Amino acid sequence: MNLILAKEKIKSFLIEDIGTGDLSSDLVFEQTDQGSGFFVAKSDCIVSGSFVANIVYEILGANAKYTSKISDGNFAKKGDIIGVSEGSIRTLLSGERIILNLMQRMSAIASLTNDLKIALNDPSIKICDTRKTVPGLRIFDKHAVLDGGGCNHRFGLYDGVMLKDNHIAYAGGIEPAVQKVREKLGHTVKIEVEVETQEQVIEAVRANADIIMFDNRTPDEVREFVKLVPTHIVTEISGGITLENIHSYKGTGANYISTGMMTHSVIAKDISFNKSKGIK
Amino acid sequence: MNLILAKEKIKSFLIEDIGTGDLSSDLVFEQTDQGSGFFVAKSDCIVSGSFVANIVYEILGANAKYTSKISDGNFAKKGDIIGVSEGSIRTLLSGERIILNLMQRMSAIASLTNDLKIALNDPSIKICDTRKTVPGLRIFDKHAVLDGGGCNHRFGLYDGVMLKDNHIAYAGGIEPAVQKVREKLGHTVKIEVEVETQEQVIEAVRANADIIMFDNRTPDEVREFVKLVPTHIVTEISGGITLENIHSYKGTGANYISTGMMTHSVIAKDISFNKSKGIK
Amino acid sequence: MNLILAKEKIKSFLIEDIGTGDLSSDLVFEQTDQGSGFFVAKSDCIVSGSFVANIVYEILGANAKYTSKISDGNFAKKGDIIGVSEGSIRTLLSGERIILNLMQRMSAIASLTNDLKIALNDPSIKICDTRKTVPGLRIFDKHAVLDGGGCNHRFGLYDGVMLKDNHIAYAGGIEPAVQKVREKLGHTVKIEVEVETQEQVIEAVRANADIIMFDNRTPDEVREFVKLVPTHIVTEISGGITLENIHSYKGTGANYISTGMMTHSVIAKDISFNKSKGIK
Amino acid sequence: MNLILAKEKIKSFLIEDIGTGDLSSDLVFEQTDQGSGFFVAKSDCIVSGSFVANIVYEILGANAKYTSKISDGNFAKKGDIIGVSEGSIRTLLSGERIILNLMQRMSAIASLTNDLKIALNDPSIKICDTRKTVPGLRIFDKHAVLDGGGCNHRFGLYDGVMLKDNHIAYAGGIEPAVQKVREKLGHTVKIEVEVETQEQVIEAVRANADIIMFDNRTPDEVREFVKLVPTHIVTEISGGITLENIHSYKGTGANYISTGMMTHSVIAKDISFNKSKGIK
Amino acid sequence: MNLILAKEKIKSFLIEDIGTGDLSSDLVFEQTDQGSGFFVAKSDCIVSGSFVANIVYEILGANAKYTSKISDGNFAKKGDIIGVSEGSIRTLLSGERIILNLMQRMSAIASLTNDLKIALNDPSIKICDTRKTVPGLRIFDKHAVLDGGGCNHRFGLYDGVMLKDNHIAYAGGIEPAVQKVREKLGHTVKIEVEVETQEQVIEAVRANADIIMFDNRTPDEVREFVKLVPTHIVTEISGGITLENIHSYKGTGANYISTGMMTHSVIAKDISFNKSKGIK
Amino acid sequence: MNLILAKEKIKSFLIEDIGTGDLSSDLVFEQTDQGSGFFVAKSDCIVSGSFVANIVYEILGANAKYTSKISDGNFAKKGDIIGVSEGSIRTLLSGERIILNLMQRMSAIASLTNDLKIALNDPSIKICDTRKTVPGLRIFDKHAVLDGGGCNHRFGLYDGVMLKDNHIAYAGGIEPAVQKVREKLGHTVKIEVEVETQEQVIEAVRANADIIMFDNRTPDEVREFVKLVPTHIVTEISGGITLENIHSYKGTGANYISTGMMTHSVIAKDISFNKSKGIK
Repeated sequence: MNLILAKEKIKSFLIEDIGTGDLSSDLVFEQTDQGSGFFVAKSDCIVSGSFVANIVYEILGANAKYTSKISDGNFAKKGDIIGVSEGSIRTLLSGERIILNLMQRMSAIASLTNDLKIALNDPSIKICDTRKTVPGLRIFDKHAVLDGGGCNHRFGLYDGVMLKDNHIAYAGGIEPAVQKVREKLGHTVKIEVEVETQEQVIEAVRANADIIMFDNRTPDEVREFVKLVPTHIVTEISGGITLENIHSYKGTGANYISTGMMTHSVIAKDISFNKSKGIK
Repeated sequence: MNLILAKEKIKSFLIEDIGTGDLSSDLVFEQTDQGSGFFVAKSDCIVSGSFVANIVYEILGANAKYTSKISDGNFAKKGDIIGVSEGSIRTLLSGERIILNLMQRMSAIASLTNDLKIALNDPSIKICDTRKTVPGLRIFDKHAVLDGGGCNHRFGLYDGVMLKDNHIAYAGGIEPAVQKVREKLGHTVKIEVEVETQEQVIEAVRANADIIMFDNRTPDEVREFVKLVPTHIVTEISGGITLENIHSYKGTGANYISTGMMTHSVIAKDISFNKSKGIK
Repeated sequence: MNLILAKEKIKSFLIEDIGTGDLSSDLVFEQTDQGSGFFVAKSDCIVSGSFVANIVYEILGANAKYTSKISDGNFAKKGDIIGVSEGSIRTLLSGERIILNLMQRMSAIASLTNDLKIALNDPSIKICDTRKTVPGLRIFDKHAVLDGGGCNHRFGLYDGVMLKDNHIAYAGGIEPAVQKVREKLGHTVKIEVEVETQEQVIEAVRANADIIMFDNRTPDEVREFVKLVPTHIVTEISGGITLENIHSYKGTGANYISTGMMTHSVIAKDISFNKSKGIK
Repeated sequence: MNLILAKEKIKSFLIEDIGTGDLSSDLVFEQTDQGSGFFVAKSDCIVSGSFVANIVYEILGANAKYTSKISDGNFAKKGDIIGVSEGSIRTLLSGERIILNLMQRMSAIASLTNDLKIALNDPSIKICDTRKTVPGLRIFDKHAVLDGGGCNHRFGLYDGVMLKDNHIAYAGGIEPAVQKVREKLGHTVKIEVEVETQEQVIEAVRANADIIMFDNRTPDEVREFVKLVPTHIVTEISGGITLENIHSYKGTGANYISTGMMTHSVIAKDISFNKSKGIK
Repeated sequence: MNLILAKEKIKSFLIEDIGTGDLSSDLVFEQTDQGSGFFVAKSDCIVSGSFVANIVYEILGANAKYTSKISDGNFAKKGDIIGVSEGSIRTLLSGERIILNLMQRMSAIASLTNDLKIALNDPSIKICDTRKTVPGLRIFDKHAVLDGGGCNHRFGLYDGVMLKDNHIAYAGGIEPAVQKVREKLGHTVKIEVEVETQEQVIEAVRANADIIMFDNRTPDEVREFVKLVPTHIVTEISGGITLENIHSYKGTGANYISTGMMTHSVIAKDISFNKSKGIK
Repeated sequence: MNLILAKEKIKSFLIEDIGTGDLSSDLVFEQTDQGSGFFVAKSDCIVSGSFVANIVYEILGANAKYTSKISDGNFAKKGDIIGVSEGSIRTLLSGERIILNLMQRMSAIASLTNDLKIALNDPSIKICDTRKTVPGLRIFDKHAVLDGGGCNHRFGLYDGVMLKDNHIAYAGGIEPAVQKVREKLGHTVKIEVEVETQEQVIEAVRANADIIMFDNRTPDEVREFVKLVPTHIVTEISGGITLENIHSYKGTGANYISTGMMTHSVIAKDISFNKSKGIK
């Protein structure tokens, strides 16, 4: 992850939340009042986003620090202390909500990714994400997927070509579409083609696409399609994958399953910040 | 909503997604190729965030426009067309993901807010949000709550005072805490106090708090507490509210129920963008 | 105050002033040349804005520091040393003007606020500010008002509702206007209504406005109006208040006097930066 | 003036004021409600900053426009209409305060500059400003000085060298200081030297400074000093100039009087925005 | 290219050049004075960057427009008119330098890319760029390479993996390095390996790298190495390529030659802006 | 140089290059892996831009530092070590390209400036730059000119007036043009006039321009023109100056030669970063 970019973004999140000032904390506490607090997992989860705490305190000033107890990518049981914060109470309180909002979301994404892996129960097929992330948070959402044991699909429209039905129809078929793109495209960028039928799979193979994505196909169809693809071309299942149905794709022989569900449909993990009370 | 701010944010979202360029669309289509597409509800929902489409096309350039069919805050049945886009295919494709990511999230928030209202079934108690929004998206998340028929709680740490257990313990009680804050606080800002016991309710009333929030209380406790509060003080239920249990707070007499669930735990509404194919 | 925001703003102020480089200091002094200087009050004032010096030196680099002798919100007599700076001469000289421009303005605002309090001579009526601040400097201008013993009115159009003649006329009266706003407004935001006549006061009370502002009323009118308002509604005097006439509102029974004069009409306090000369 | 820069700044001012939304106007008016209003001079002034209205409406959206009646740099009598605004009432109300805050300040600066010219009553001496402007507003403050008939001194530390007592003492005298600077300085930048004694004037002339500034000198001293300076070197009076004492410098033969008073000590001109009421 | 990003960058370039205002043009011309001008090639070149003119005028305001005569990617002979500008003279003059600085640089990059293609004289080997671009201008530099008939290598450290000697030595060889990266890397990103010996080529093939780059190899070495690489792996020549020696790589059988010379060592193409004179 | 501005710019350059993360280094190395490297001159040069390394490491984090061996403005022989970097390998690798891209360009500019001085061989004529710099890099390009022993011409359109043929023709001659500008221009800004004929020189002298620039004149013409200009007016040669022809202007008596070639036509100096290999 690019920490410079992460820091710039977190600074803007703090400004969004604190605005013209944290009225409650600034009017009750003095800058010199010291305190501490624990980030506690209120349910089992894969921890992600605890690095945000360090950045938040670095931005808010020198008098607060975060000590990790369970680092990102690791499992926390309900009740486990994920990390400890110490420093100016004002800093702890002003930064609390941004840390929690990110850590709860990222831990949920990481945990859901991990759940998908367990449900799939096929280590030969990797789970990966999509561009269905929350606007502005892509580097955080995708980092959480890594923490959950998944992989990242392209980050945006700039680092991978994806030819969908519109591109293909317009260009007059998969081969002409791939051909057209390859003429101008640099050799460091992969071309992925979305297919729905056997004929399209065959055409995509003939076009020598780098990745062939089976869009909204049943496990049986995937099994058939995979057989048509030589091993140096990557195969990807996509469309309508859920925690409930992912197991049915076990053993289909594809290389990847991509799904946007762990980033567009997130039930925040319950993580609380338990502060020492009435410090003086 | 401040549309200047929304536009600045949406511009940054587009830059995040498009990066150094939309390789797929730029290599396949010409700038002059025209097309159209429909935003279709794939399940019932309250529409929210369709105004984003206008802003996206305004930023991407003059040759695309969005025509709303079901405007924000209104109900769309599964299969309904929410809006129609026309213009340069490149523009339609480059902007598609950001529009969908926001519209799907906002429609989900609006719909969940509406679900909570229906489940509660008590128009005397209003539903409102919290600061548990996705960082960077607060104005969008909170706007969606309005579209769903809810109200907005404070937007940040700057436009409302919330005295929690830490503030109270540190100041030596609710009355001294409110007293301390009121000395320096402007008269345009309200003071909300979080309470858990009858004694605290009584103390908060004596301190003349503007809002008293009953934190994690049962419906019966709320009923008891409400009786202790004069009508010019606003009462608010908070903590652990779900779609399943909200109905139990019907008739408790409080003024507001605040919950972060519709913004921190969002199952994106399925809205698709069906493009006319192979346009020429 | 949100120090992250203050730091971002001060960084932009330094870039405005230093531009492509401080030609005079960079060409005469070496980066390693050390010096010191004193910020001296050239007339009596309430000090405000000295925290800016710390931020300026933090931004300009590690080799300069400011030690406060009279901290913000305290009285400095003519000739008093407010603070001492030590470090690289280049840093001291490059940062001097921004520190002085802010400290002189903020000390003037704080002092004028204090003058208004003294002239009013009625501790039951608090002095507060308006949105008539210099664009871009609102957090500094309003912080200075606090240092001078005043209170802050709303910070912008977003953290308080103010219904003026236009809103009221359009909505068809005070009650319909308040009614209309309250339907959609969150419960954490106060509604203030501007009134000019007894009838309007009575209507505003009936509408249960949170704050009633008597616009451009004489002390006698204020006295009459106040009697019509129950104590749980805040009363505010506004319009045409000056250092000369404020005393006439003593004892009128209102809660607040708001005036924009201490922020829109500022005679900068004379504070000088006396540098040790010819250091080597 | 660089209008791109002005527009960026005004956008940030609007975001400062409107924040997350203009609650009052957005809740009372519809976007389609049209209205109009007049900017009226409540006292005599030189108009400055009315161009801000055009930029504010351009940023806020297409449905409002400003028509100038008295353009910047011209005289408005008490009661004169400076300009007329028409468009969406929301836009007129949301933009009102930023326009007024800038126009009132700039008109005050322009008027005071003009007052200084009249009080001096010597067209052979031009009035110019300093860097004692409000941080962030330098291009506006200095533009207002031009509208008032004054000139601009350097805009920052980057577009002119000013050698003060510290630089001179450190370098071992005026000549060595000028010598040292000239070695590295580009030929497009002028060197100004601050002097207090006849000896220093002579030394500055010998050093061939481009501008010699007489710091805190009496009219008689100025008269003496001017005689020592050849005509191709510009002379400037500075320090302690007020509206009361400026006339005493009439006829002293210097080329410029620089003073920071019209930008650091501004009594905002009373300009009001009279809106058409209750439009429907 | 992402035009939103290009526009933001060009806006910042204009602010860098115009600063607080274009003194010369603003003091001589009126905003309403109209003029025109021709961009003329003073030597043969491939035109690139003329789209910048449209963006510059869009930012500077509505009263200037650029009409292209020779569009980007096409050949201009010495003396040819590339495009014509019409509008406010102020706008034409204020924008002239930024347009020329970019168009001259980009046309030079495009022309040099084209020269390399001609010198190589082997259409089976494509020319591509590197990350040796001028900081801040990467999208412009790389766009010019496309206009010159070249291809783009990765845009940054984020859209392609490049394993160099350090990575390989640290990981204990090419295979372990590729293995280590592939475990965590998404399938949409290619892995390129830098090799210098036959043994390394064989190891890279065994590791199934996507791209094998022959670093600083002679044409004969390249010929040998290419034979060891199966056709589904891309081969790339890099290191020390010049306009003088590129022809020697003709027929070596590699797929790409990458070189940074056309972006890090640019002799600006002489393009002039001939303005109509003394317009009135 | 304004280091605050330089730091902001370098931060944006790093974000441009690193984007969403340095895939290669982050996947191979751990954050705690330490390494070192040497910046080595691969050909003779004047070093410039090594200060960039300090800023890059400051931005990327605390665990890397740069120690200068040959500081900016000094000569490095082929093979000399310019500086040494130590710290986290990730940081060294992620920052390498930006440091090199700037240092190679700046050292080339500095060296070329020095070459021009040597070729001219006339210390009475100083070499200075123009506005023909790469957009966004002006402070770096112009700083390199200083390191090479040159001077800076104006930085932009805001810190110097340059009257060219268009301005002059429009105003009706040199004298009216200078007159018109001087009326409104501050006294701290110099006026430069571009001339091509003896008549124009004489007119520019009569107009008392601060700088007279001989545009595209032969050495003999310059010699003639210089005689017509009194010594208090600066003379400048400009137009078509190259490393080959600059010597012919030796002894012509002008004060400055300005040329854009060392900033618009730069052959990057070959500087390499030799890293310790396979560190563990």
